[in-house]
Amino acid sequence: MTEMPRESVGLVTPRTAHFDDPLELACGKTLPAYDLVYETYGTLNAERSNAVLICHALSGHHHAAGFHSPEDRKPGWWDAHIGPGKSIDTERFFVVSLNNLGGCHGSTGPTSLNPETGEPWGPDFPMMTVLDWVHSQARLADRLGIQRFAAIIGGSLGGMQVLQWALSYPDRIAHAGVIAATPKLSAQNIAFNEVARQAIRSDPDFFDGRYADHGTLPRRGLKLARMVGHITYLSEDAMGSKFGRDLRSADLNFGYDVEFQVESYLRHQGDTFSSSFDAHTYLLMTKALDYFDPAADHDGDLSAAVAPATCPFLVVSFSSDWRFPPSRSRELVNALIRAGKSVSYANIDSPHGHDAFLLPEPRYQAIFTAFMERVAHDQGLEDRS
Amino acid sequence: MTEMPRESVGLVTPRTAHFDDPLELACGKTLPAYDLVYETYGTLNAERSNAVLICHALSGHHHAAGFHSPEDRKPGWWDAHIGPGKSIDTERFFVVSLNNLGGCHGSTGPTSLNPETGEPWGPDFPMMTVLDWVHSQARLADRLGIQRFAAIIGGSLGGMQVLQWALSYPDRIAHAGVIAATPKLSAQNIAFNEVARQAIRSDPDFFDGRYADHGTLPRRGLKLARMVGHITYLSEDAMGSKFGRDLRSADLNFGYDVEFQVESYLRHQGDTFSSSFDAHTYLLMTKALDYFDPAADHDGDLSAAVAPATCPFLVVSFSSDWRFPPSRSRELVNALIRAGKSVSYANIDSPHGHDAFLLPEPRYQAIFTAFMERVAHDQGLEDRS
Repeated sequence: MTEMPRESVGLVTPRTAHFDDPLELACGKTLPAYDLVYETYGTLNAERSNAVLICHALSGHHHAAGFHSPEDRKPGWWDAHIGPGKSIDTERFFVVSLNNLGGCHGSTGPTSLNPETGEPWGPDFPMMTVLDWVHSQARLADRLGIQRFAAIIGGSLGGMQVLQWALSYPDRIAHAGVIAATPKLSAQNIAFNEVARQAIRSDPDFFDGRYADHGTLPRRGLKLARMVGHITYLSEDAMGSKFGRDLRSADLNFGYDVEFQVESYLRHQGDTFSSSFDAHTYLLMTKALDYFDPAADHDGDLSAAVAPATCPFLVVSFSSDWRFPPSRSRELVNALIRAGKSVSYANIDSPHGHDAFLLPEPRYQAIFTAFMERVAHDQGLEDRS
Repeated sequence: MTEMPRESVGLVTPRTAHFDDPLELACGKTLPAYDLVYETYGTLNAERSNAVLICHALSGHHHAAGFHSPEDRKPGWWDAHIGPGKSIDTERFFVVSLNNLGGCHGSTGPTSLNPETGEPWGPDFPMMTVLDWVHSQARLADRLGIQRFAAIIGGSLGGMQVLQWALSYPDRIAHAGVIAATPKLSAQNIAFNEVARQAIRSDPDFFDGRYADHGTLPRRGLKLARMVGHITYLSEDAMGSKFGRDLRSADLNFGYDVEFQVESYLRHQGDTFSSSFDAHTYLLMTKALDYFDPAADHDGDLSAAVAPATCPFLVVSFSSDWRFPPSRSRELVNALIRAGKSVSYANIDSPHGHDAFLLPEPRYQAIFTAFMERVAHDQGLEDRS
């Protein structure tokens, strides 16, 4: 790449915040100290009223926008929506994006050293929950001098963190953007996660989680987990129009080499992922998804669970998302309405399944932009024009 | 079990038919000789006009009805629909049910001895297609003295065999019952099959298919394959109402032991299957599914592909089947109508997903029974009453 795209935040450099005060976790354990790696885009204003926190999904990380080097072929994972003139306009907002605890992109996680042993945490890394992440994100906000976020926004598992913020820290979130998420997983969602976990944990190279000690990586399991995941991220129609039943070569080979394009795609996705992502992180992230259920402490009454929230919500779903379908978003919307909260809801017509939340789509962008205009207005930010 | 249920065909004994005339296969290879194991229920009439062939699905076999011993806790896989007074009334019809070639329940398959080597075929067993099965089934019919079946009926992959019969042997099938099937797999269907195959083939105990030589079984892979399969057999709602997010014990354990009931169910299904089913057979069956596409030789024009069919069709789908949804059955129905064929179609409202085709459901039973009444009438069979 010789020149940055005009609407890019350009070159960005991750930073690391170290925390020495122990973090008590939902599982009952305590993380004595930890690092959070994060990026920021834009400038925090003098009133500190323009900060937007981005929460990432299962395989996401802090690198949400821009490029790490001029040689980067791909920008951050949400570059379609973060940058100058984009939905989350970095000329107006100060955007914070971090890698969650338990991750494998720089924040303290299973590949980090356990201070008690001097060895990588591996399987001893404590189980994380959405609530734990939100607490750690609040500490990062303290560190950055942000008392209250103008908005907290996330898709999928990221959307769950946004909802948790609204319940746990209602005074610190002015607007909530919950995109392609669900107030809790269905049995089928848990089932897919369980297949992924079994694939990883039954890989002989997993060694009960001690793969680092054995100099191995459970690549086969992680590959399978990612393949299953990818099926659920794409709609049946998107997969059909992308690959159909197209053959890779002209004839059937009547063997187990790749015959159909969709096989080639899945194997490639699985292979790439399995050499770049940590298996323990994948396990942790799927469990955090399974555990998320804010209504559980309220006899399953979600409208009672959302009572503490004070901020207005934007809830977005995508018509062809079968992982967290529109009906799941409407559960949240209805609970918010029953609880008397302010909520806007949009179901975006898109053929791209769950992945649609990552993509630019005109109506999605328009709604997202309008929401951020409202955020700017509510926060008294200077008009762009 | 001390007494057979009244509506059961009772104790049944599988028989084996040996064939010495080579079978040319779609893959270009030839099976020099083979066995087909089968069961029959009811009595072939003097006119040989009351024979019904049952075609099985991916993990099915010849044991469709009745019991193998008084100690059997479960009857055959389609006992809900085959027996005295049931939809396929064995007081009226002579029912033939076989294990397909490539199977692992007695018919020649990967676990059989390769006559050329005296060793099990294993990975050298030739790839099977729906067309190959239909040819072998026609030979079994010859052996049993059945020139023309009153009806051929099957669900899922079994339904594909029925359709192939109507195209390849129109003179030998008087009525076709295609249940919960599709005229070809979607990219998503192929993707799920590919995950299952990769799970089996990447299991280190698979040894490039030579697991028998190594005294191993790719149980981990087969378990994962079955777990993925089970998710697609049940509807999201069925899984939800069966398991919900119920915990196995009172509390979260924040670990990777079973926490949710659905995890327990899937692991159990996977474990049971992985100790009773052959991995090569599973691989073969998924490929046969992927390959099936009768319209492929007609530039994708299914109505041109079905031109040879002469029999009336019953096509049945189930509202919550997301593996082969009603829209896929309607593709077939529409093609048959465009081709001027006789077809009845019913979409049964059922919460049970793809598995619904195996279950008794009043409206399904009523439609199935009415269809078989028509078969009996068309065949000039004596009225039951």
